[in-house]
Amino acid sequence: MNTFGQLLRVTTFGESHGPAIGCVVDGCPPGIAITAEDFSHDLARRATGRTRHTSARHEADAVEILSGVYEGHTTGTPIALLVRNTDARSKDYDRIARQFRPGHADYTYWHKYGIRDPRGGGRSSARETTMRVAAAVIAKKWLADRFGVRVRGHLAQIGGVMPRSHDWTVVEDNPFFWPDAGQVAELETFMDALRKSGDSVGARVTVVADGVPPGWGEPVYGKLDAELAAAMMSINAVKGVEIGDGFASVAQKGSGHRDAMAPEGFGSNHAGGILGGISSGQQVVCSVAFKPTSSLRLPVEGVDVDGNAVEIVTTGRHDPCVGIRATPICEAMMALVLMDQALRHRAQCGDVGEVAPRIPGG
Amino acid sequence: MNTFGQLLRVTTFGESHGPAIGCVVDGCPPGIAITAEDFSHDLARRATGRTRHTSARHEADAVEILSGVYEGHTTGTPIALLVRNTDARSKDYDRIARQFRPGHADYTYWHKYGIRDPRGGGRSSARETTMRVAAAVIAKKWLADRFGVRVRGHLAQIGGVMPRSHDWTVVEDNPFFWPDAGQVAELETFMDALRKSGDSVGARVTVVADGVPPGWGEPVYGKLDAELAAAMMSINAVKGVEIGDGFASVAQKGSGHRDAMAPEGFGSNHAGGILGGISSGQQVVCSVAFKPTSSLRLPVEGVDVDGNAVEIVTTGRHDPCVGIRATPICEAMMALVLMDQALRHRAQCGDVGEVAPRIPGG
Amino acid sequence: MNTFGQLLRVTTFGESHGPAIGCVVDGCPPGIAITAEDFSHDLARRATGRTRHTSARHEADAVEILSGVYEGHTTGTPIALLVRNTDARSKDYDRIARQFRPGHADYTYWHKYGIRDPRGGGRSSARETTMRVAAAVIAKKWLADRFGVRVRGHLAQIGGVMPRSHDWTVVEDNPFFWPDAGQVAELETFMDALRKSGDSVGARVTVVADGVPPGWGEPVYGKLDAELAAAMMSINAVKGVEIGDGFASVAQKGSGHRDAMAPEGFGSNHAGGILGGISSGQQVVCSVAFKPTSSLRLPVEGVDVDGNAVEIVTTGRHDPCVGIRATPICEAMMALVLMDQALRHRAQCGDVGEVAPRIPGG
Amino acid sequence: MNTFGQLLRVTTFGESHGPAIGCVVDGCPPGIAITAEDFSHDLARRATGRTRHTSARHEADAVEILSGVYEGHTTGTPIALLVRNTDARSKDYDRIARQFRPGHADYTYWHKYGIRDPRGGGRSSARETTMRVAAAVIAKKWLADRFGVRVRGHLAQIGGVMPRSHDWTVVEDNPFFWPDAGQVAELETFMDALRKSGDSVGARVTVVADGVPPGWGEPVYGKLDAELAAAMMSINAVKGVEIGDGFASVAQKGSGHRDAMAPEGFGSNHAGGILGGISSGQQVVCSVAFKPTSSLRLPVEGVDVDGNAVEIVTTGRHDPCVGIRATPICEAMMALVLMDQALRHRAQCGDVGEVAPRIPGG
Repeated sequence: MNTFGQLLRVTTFGESHGPAIGCVVDGCPPGIAITAEDFSHDLARRATGRTRHTSARHEADAVEILSGVYEGHTTGTPIALLVRNTDARSKDYDRIARQFRPGHADYTYWHKYGIRDPRGGGRSSARETTMRVAAAVIAKKWLADRFGVRVRGHLAQIGGVMPRSHDWTVVEDNPFFWPDAGQVAELETFMDALRKSGDSVGARVTVVADGVPPGWGEPVYGKLDAELAAAMMSINAVKGVEIGDGFASVAQKGSGHRDAMAPEGFGSNHAGGILGGISSGQQVVCSVAFKPTSSLRLPVEGVDVDGNAVEIVTTGRHDPCVGIRATPICEAMMALVLMDQALRHRAQCGDVGEVAPRIPGG
Repeated sequence: MNTFGQLLRVTTFGESHGPAIGCVVDGCPPGIAITAEDFSHDLARRATGRTRHTSARHEADAVEILSGVYEGHTTGTPIALLVRNTDARSKDYDRIARQFRPGHADYTYWHKYGIRDPRGGGRSSARETTMRVAAAVIAKKWLADRFGVRVRGHLAQIGGVMPRSHDWTVVEDNPFFWPDAGQVAELETFMDALRKSGDSVGARVTVVADGVPPGWGEPVYGKLDAELAAAMMSINAVKGVEIGDGFASVAQKGSGHRDAMAPEGFGSNHAGGILGGISSGQQVVCSVAFKPTSSLRLPVEGVDVDGNAVEIVTTGRHDPCVGIRATPICEAMMALVLMDQALRHRAQCGDVGEVAPRIPGG
Repeated sequence: MNTFGQLLRVTTFGESHGPAIGCVVDGCPPGIAITAEDFSHDLARRATGRTRHTSARHEADAVEILSGVYEGHTTGTPIALLVRNTDARSKDYDRIARQFRPGHADYTYWHKYGIRDPRGGGRSSARETTMRVAAAVIAKKWLADRFGVRVRGHLAQIGGVMPRSHDWTVVEDNPFFWPDAGQVAELETFMDALRKSGDSVGARVTVVADGVPPGWGEPVYGKLDAELAAAMMSINAVKGVEIGDGFASVAQKGSGHRDAMAPEGFGSNHAGGILGGISSGQQVVCSVAFKPTSSLRLPVEGVDVDGNAVEIVTTGRHDPCVGIRATPICEAMMALVLMDQALRHRAQCGDVGEVAPRIPGG
Repeated sequence: MNTFGQLLRVTTFGESHGPAIGCVVDGCPPGIAITAEDFSHDLARRATGRTRHTSARHEADAVEILSGVYEGHTTGTPIALLVRNTDARSKDYDRIARQFRPGHADYTYWHKYGIRDPRGGGRSSARETTMRVAAAVIAKKWLADRFGVRVRGHLAQIGGVMPRSHDWTVVEDNPFFWPDAGQVAELETFMDALRKSGDSVGARVTVVADGVPPGWGEPVYGKLDAELAAAMMSINAVKGVEIGDGFASVAQKGSGHRDAMAPEGFGSNHAGGILGGISSGQQVVCSVAFKPTSSLRLPVEGVDVDGNAVEIVTTGRHDPCVGIRATPICEAMMALVLMDQALRHRAQCGDVGEVAPRIPGG
């Protein structure tokens, strides 16, 4: 199942070290202005090799638009985007073609399919997320142009470190998408030490959408929060998803959690902008837990395809904290979910509402 | 979107205080032995009115099988299940037909549809989950009979209280699905006080599946964990979902998180039984956060359909902790996801594997 | 697969002689005025037992609305409709529970599922189409109210008899949905003789939609004509579908087939109102071939479940020409397809067009 | 909607004169041996420029496998296939960028999307079918290897000419996929005269599948015949679809149409191998009507984007009978439908049957 979305359908393909990765975006409204250059910014934000804190693999990530765009505008036909892999080093992985790396998908792909492409993790590599980010460039543009919706994210925790302050304006100015400029030096030191140790660490990403109108989301199995949860959990290395207060809600009282309403608006946002699976008009807030990557220079016990015990050491290029580059990926998934829900909403309820609101009993 | 699943498709319908609720289970394999009585056990576990710790509404929840079963066995045609509502008290809700209860879906349904059925929360009521539990009775049976898979759950936290020990054998013997018999009295006291205070509290439910074979789950957008996340998040009042270590992974090191493998099996299960979105053969572990219900006797500021400020007090029958009855619902969603994935797996890979495993380069 | 449609999703259930048949209509816009009485007219048009030219089975076909309607209007939640079976005579079929009737689905259901419900043909009976007609009552209403679209049909051939003239005003005034009043007596004589002979005959139904705006239909795999073809072919006993000139196009020249266009409109409609899978604004025209029913008093060679040769005689109540009652069913399928496409169109392109038309090169 | 199939999902993209066309085949079982060369044969059968009886456009149609295949075998991940367009001549179409060609999709795309890619018909060109044929190469291979299913087709009518005899062995030896070698010279004369006249003609294609086991097809909305009908009708220029006797059934009696069964098998195949939407084990037979192409050198009245009357003459390269090259396309769609149904069948009923057949009442 390599297609995401009901009406805005993104189908991705490609292996980490195969000839190319790509996607087909189907169901996109016509008339959106888009060029190949529009993809550069977000792909660069996601890319490896930009700082010493991410994998050393360097891909140009040049997007070729193969279809669906005419004279700079989407036509309503499927938009195919292609990115050639240029820095694939299959020999890095030859050694482990017959081994199952603990914490990786090697073992499960093998059991599911009876065959796996071991080159760079094949399909299970985070390289696949490149195309999610590319597809979401279109979604972000449409959401912004048509509804004024803005989707953005930041890192909210690395290991045990949490931001002490929050300033959106600094998030894009440091290699960690970190909202507290005063902690960046501390994080650099932390990450340098971690990299040298050969170990990795987890992270939390928070992504929000401002400007979402009330009414998006399809109860009861296409709820906005349910689809955000699936979208985030489908990202490599994600182990948890929260909406609004998330797991903190467990220890809360109802009198404290429920967000009071007044004629001028909501008094708080514990709900994270979603009630009954439908957007409330408040900021949509989603937090995502990334596990520490399992690809380490530190040895670990594993098994090979014949069932023998082996010691596994990963010497390929890897991220000491996969969560760092995950911010644009989480943004991408939120943007794709929101655009899909927006299209579904207007299908059922119309651009301007299928009907004027009815007063009960009226 | 009131259909859940790709191949095992469960479509539910019905409002909380409408004439009936029901579901259609489509895509079910033929030959499963099923009778109307099979539904009683799990529906009773989910039902209100069984103890003083849940809502006082008392429904018989008698399931009528309308189709798809012949001489006690499923035939492969759609199975329609119907439950008549018998204890609907619409007048309890007349007062708030023109008001939006904070923390509820009233406001968002109104904005989405321009109309809402205010009787008992209408479609957004947790009454809908009755049919999820009913449909999952079939899934649990098939999973157990065919694969030996067992799905079960327990409460893992109420407010700030966590179990001090874990014993599956006591979970079904107390009104809280609580795994530590020694704490039940404490919980009863806590819940009695809470109920008297008019407030509510959140809860955490943990649900696990034993016996899941390796290979279930469809990368990259139909991952087993992604679909579990959506399934759980689609349950009323859920604000967070974790697989395995979940948010605890954020502060972990990769050397500690990754589960070592040996010829005799995995050495730990931080991953929660899923790698790369595919089951690994270990126990599948999912934790779910329930917010405290917003329906309280304690007043709160709200607005009405005309935009006026109103004070809202909910006097209807409600649960002081919706998470308590949620254990069978979480089990249901996990069972439905697993059966759907099992069917999808054998579609692509065959009952016994499409091919024998291939040795890379061999 | 008992769900029809992408955005307007109709799920039907029920066996011919089971306790009930029903459907769930999901994705329906809110605010459509609907009552249980609205279903009577079209269900009566489809029903058996109204004239001597159809099966003698007499069902009240009373529709109960179980959900999705509040104060006489759809709410946007799933609409469940239920019809109890009241004139099921299972004993009529006991004799052939172990036999496969030639021309019926007995043999194929048995091979597919390893089990079948033999009571009245079970799920493969045309009784299932009752719920298609019911669901389409809502679609017809929405199409008419919102777009002025009118869907109607007539019989275009019975056996070798074709209408000599066409008058829509007489179609509903004779038991054959026949557009030529002057031939009705001839048809009654023909059908009486046929019924007495114990044999059956095929029929052709033509169904058209007026008022469809240009732009409905999703190239390339959701084309309006492709979905009409599937919809019609999914009706029991259908063996062929044509759009516009259909098979007559094979012998035509392009200079004659293509419909010239002028500022005031199209000059002809060989295309049947669809170009490139998208409605052109002309009348949408679809013709459907119904085979003669295989349930006859005349004996035929068959086999039983043990593989023995048996002589099969069907003594149950059957239609000598199933095509007669098929007119409202074909209308229903066209209405469902059109409404689904209308919703999909506005999802992608908006109620009033996502953008103003662009002049190429402009 | 550019995705075809439920479990074997083929998503195509690309415009006729854009940089490339391609497809993504998702849900394919692992372990199928496939190389880029495997696509050559069927793509050549479909291609233009091979004989004077088809369009003069010459494309190499070289398939690049971008993903999903490792060491010559499918891996279960999405298979992306890419074909670069090399003989696009956009200037041929500049003249009509502002005109709507009668009988073409120009007008309807314009109304649907407000924008269209006029280069070579853009997305509505039959060039898109290249990728259907490519995807079906994989399906044909799997069907043949695993079930011994063979899908093949032939032309059954050109204009008023019908075959006088039927010999499968000559079908591939003439440019018309014609089953009667004795008529080939006559057809060449006919087509030469037609081409010189500047006109075009329709055709009928018959495609059959041998070896389909009983049990494939999903009642009631995923019937094998319904999906074949949609698949065929989604091909450019198709106006009608028949299963088995098709429209001839209208004039038949039930006693003649129904296929008697004996212990040794069916006595005839009026049904075309499908009963109740499920394959019966007989040959599956489908006939398809192609209209004459509307692109002619002969002038026709049309309108332009400003609503003015214009005379339209098409001077680009076109087929005088699009049905000729359609045989491999019809085969492709049947193969894709059959493989998809096979996967769905084993999902629900298992590779070897979910259960042993049950004797009713037993």
